[in-house]
Amino acid sequence: MVGGDAGGMSAASEARRRRGPEELQITAFERGEHTSYSACGIPYWIGDVVDGPERLIARDARTFRDEYAIDARVRHEVAEIDLANREVVVRDLDGGGEIREPYDHLVIATGASPIRPDWPGADAEGIFGVQTLDDGATLRAALDRDPRPTRAVVVGAGYIGVEMAEALVNRGLDVTVVEQAEQPMATVDPDMGILVGEAMRGLGIAVRTSERVTGFASGDGRVTAVLTERSEIPADVVVLGLGVRPNSDLAEKAGLPLGVAGGVVTDLRMRVPGHDGIWAAGDCVQTVNLVTGQPTYVPLGTHANKQGRVAGTNIGGGYATFPGVVGTAVTKVCDLEVARTGLRERDATAAGFGYITVTIDSTNRSSYFPGSQAMTVKLIAERRTGRLLGGQIVGRAEAAKRIDVLAVALTNRMTVEEMTALDLGYAPPFSPVWDPVLVAARKAAQAVARR
Amino acid sequence: MVGGDAGGMSAASEARRRRGPEELQITAFERGEHTSYSACGIPYWIGDVVDGPERLIARDARTFRDEYAIDARVRHEVAEIDLANREVVVRDLDGGGEIREPYDHLVIATGASPIRPDWPGADAEGIFGVQTLDDGATLRAALDRDPRPTRAVVVGAGYIGVEMAEALVNRGLDVTVVEQAEQPMATVDPDMGILVGEAMRGLGIAVRTSERVTGFASGDGRVTAVLTERSEIPADVVVLGLGVRPNSDLAEKAGLPLGVAGGVVTDLRMRVPGHDGIWAAGDCVQTVNLVTGQPTYVPLGTHANKQGRVAGTNIGGGYATFPGVVGTAVTKVCDLEVARTGLRERDATAAGFGYITVTIDSTNRSSYFPGSQAMTVKLIAERRTGRLLGGQIVGRAEAAKRIDVLAVALTNRMTVEEMTALDLGYAPPFSPVWDPVLVAARKAAQAVARR
Repeated sequence: MVGGDAGGMSAASEARRRRGPEELQITAFERGEHTSYSACGIPYWIGDVVDGPERLIARDARTFRDEYAIDARVRHEVAEIDLANREVVVRDLDGGGEIREPYDHLVIATGASPIRPDWPGADAEGIFGVQTLDDGATLRAALDRDPRPTRAVVVGAGYIGVEMAEALVNRGLDVTVVEQAEQPMATVDPDMGILVGEAMRGLGIAVRTSERVTGFASGDGRVTAVLTERSEIPADVVVLGLGVRPNSDLAEKAGLPLGVAGGVVTDLRMRVPGHDGIWAAGDCVQTVNLVTGQPTYVPLGTHANKQGRVAGTNIGGGYATFPGVVGTAVTKVCDLEVARTGLRERDATAAGFGYITVTIDSTNRSSYFPGSQAMTVKLIAERRTGRLLGGQIVGRAEAAKRIDVLAVALTNRMTVEEMTALDLGYAPPFSPVWDPVLVAARKAAQAVARR
Repeated sequence: MVGGDAGGMSAASEARRRRGPEELQITAFERGEHTSYSACGIPYWIGDVVDGPERLIARDARTFRDEYAIDARVRHEVAEIDLANREVVVRDLDGGGEIREPYDHLVIATGASPIRPDWPGADAEGIFGVQTLDDGATLRAALDRDPRPTRAVVVGAGYIGVEMAEALVNRGLDVTVVEQAEQPMATVDPDMGILVGEAMRGLGIAVRTSERVTGFASGDGRVTAVLTERSEIPADVVVLGLGVRPNSDLAEKAGLPLGVAGGVVTDLRMRVPGHDGIWAAGDCVQTVNLVTGQPTYVPLGTHANKQGRVAGTNIGGGYATFPGVVGTAVTKVCDLEVARTGLRERDATAAGFGYITVTIDSTNRSSYFPGSQAMTVKLIAERRTGRLLGGQIVGRAEAAKRIDVLAVALTNRMTVEEMTALDLGYAPPFSPVWDPVLVAARKAAQAVARR
């Protein structure tokens, strides 16, 4: 395994489950300090919502060694893949020195890294990406230094940006988020992103949209402000939430095929095509968008785990495939839950779909039931056929996981008309008699019929 | 419309939406006091969780008259359907007298009534079924009388029985539930029903299972005890939770076809076959179980609303169908959420399926996230094919509505293997990295592969 987080260690564990140590020797090299951790939990650790870093680690290197007979070596970085000789060149980052390690199967699970544009001043101290547990520890140390930082700027209002902004507010900092798009959370359409912006402002976060960062000012090598086209925003600490890019340099240097956004190309079994015994999984690979049928790049822990397990199953002599994703994601800002799946309007347009959209307001429970809260559901469906193309849900409680209904409907290429008959759970504590998803499907079916 | 609750008034409203008062005259006869109310909310009204009865009424007769131009007449009972003359005979229950009302289209939406076995003593005062808003008012009055009843016995531990038991505990009564099956909540398999029984006992409810009621003792015409094969349980008030049967006598007398459990037979458009212009919807009709393809009887408000809307769409000149149900239901006992869909083991056996079952324990959120609570998921899948046949979920929070994922999967005849790749929403506040449904699907796929 090249990489000891979700993709790599899921592959290792599953392969081990199927083939014992006498049959298959498994070694995993991880350049960081930790194996198998929840990167998605890091913002909650930073925000003191959960303890860390230990609680975020599913299994440490010792556990892999002792209980799984997997030789997991942290602080070991694979520097080169030598396809011709079926070897990897590994650097011991603490002990020093290089070794060459032969392999029959190689799983590339190198993950992704935060995007750091080469803006002027971007190498100043105090500017952080948050992807690994080590990144999280570095940021926490920076928040605890003396004098304590009081002003934070988050660049980018995607998942990590929004979650980090809330975490930093929880830590008592003044937080400004700068986003170049017209609304935060560009993974949903702007009309839904407005609701996210309102929730962020409700937390006391300064949200500046349609504003492009141009660089950083610094003093004594330490960041002092974020510079934008319009202004200079003072900052003691800056967090980059600009998304990630796959760590695929190693694969590229070895001559392996890269696809969308530089993700490693694999087949359904997570094999790298044309290279016998080479596999890839996790945030470093491209995958398939099941709605468009096109390749896409969606780094997410849940996909990494599934892909790793598929690779491990196949390496272990079994049969498994990872067909692709529909693009489901959920998050929350304070008590506002935000969920999306499938295509946004711009994705549908880009893919060549003609579509209708509908947006409805409903509630999580029967309106007369205590705890009833507002929920907004937006659906996008193909013109004429009425095939569901995507959906977004924003609400105050029990909203986000309703997106799963849409995700399963998308997977099965249901039409919104078919969806109006779905037999979803109803009881007053859980749903109005027409579930919000059904109300939206009904309205969408009417819109399709009119076009 | 014969009947002014969910089925009838959904049909009336939808027909009106499509055809104005100048085109279509709509009259609805309701023998009770109220139109369009949430019967499912009654236990929560009894338990003082929600206000009532007004809050449970979606639209009253006046609203239908004034805003929808629908002549909704409460306390009017249809006594006879005269198919030959296309008329109904209607009794004015308050004013007295009978009228004959002609129709072009007739919607039979007579609902269902609690099953009252003809046990000895069953006609004593103090024994209540809970189906209509009027039933709810009667029971509330009985609970408020002087001297106040202190001991309640609920006969039957299905949805209504369990919900009513909790409501009565909320009102401060000592509550005993008597159930002839081996576990409460026979709509789930006994291994899941055990968990419901534990939760009920945790509320202080005395749960007596595998015990058959034989009759009632009474004094001065008022119930004093419930008699079983084994004992005599003192009772000031008795609630029957033995399920309901369709109010299809009227249809039967008119010679209309009845099916499973006496439900009125309809086609996909909710027409009664062979009888032009006769429709039926709601708790009085039989429907189709989409998993077995067989007719079934599932009285539930959410189906009634959908069926009514389908009938109304068709009467209004549109096109809509109600394909059937997969059998989804959710409820809660205190903070224990219980959900089911598709076939139980006994249903699968009865239908002739060979199957495997798996049960897994997981959590609603990432285990390290605050508020993480246990959840149990059981899946039933066909042998060989691995097709999902049913599922049940019991958990403490954010558990029940996860059943919707299984409901959509059932509707689309997914296999458990296919389900392992579902792109369900993941973030630490909402799910472990492997959603409990995925963990169960994975284990089920392994079980299928082994058989």
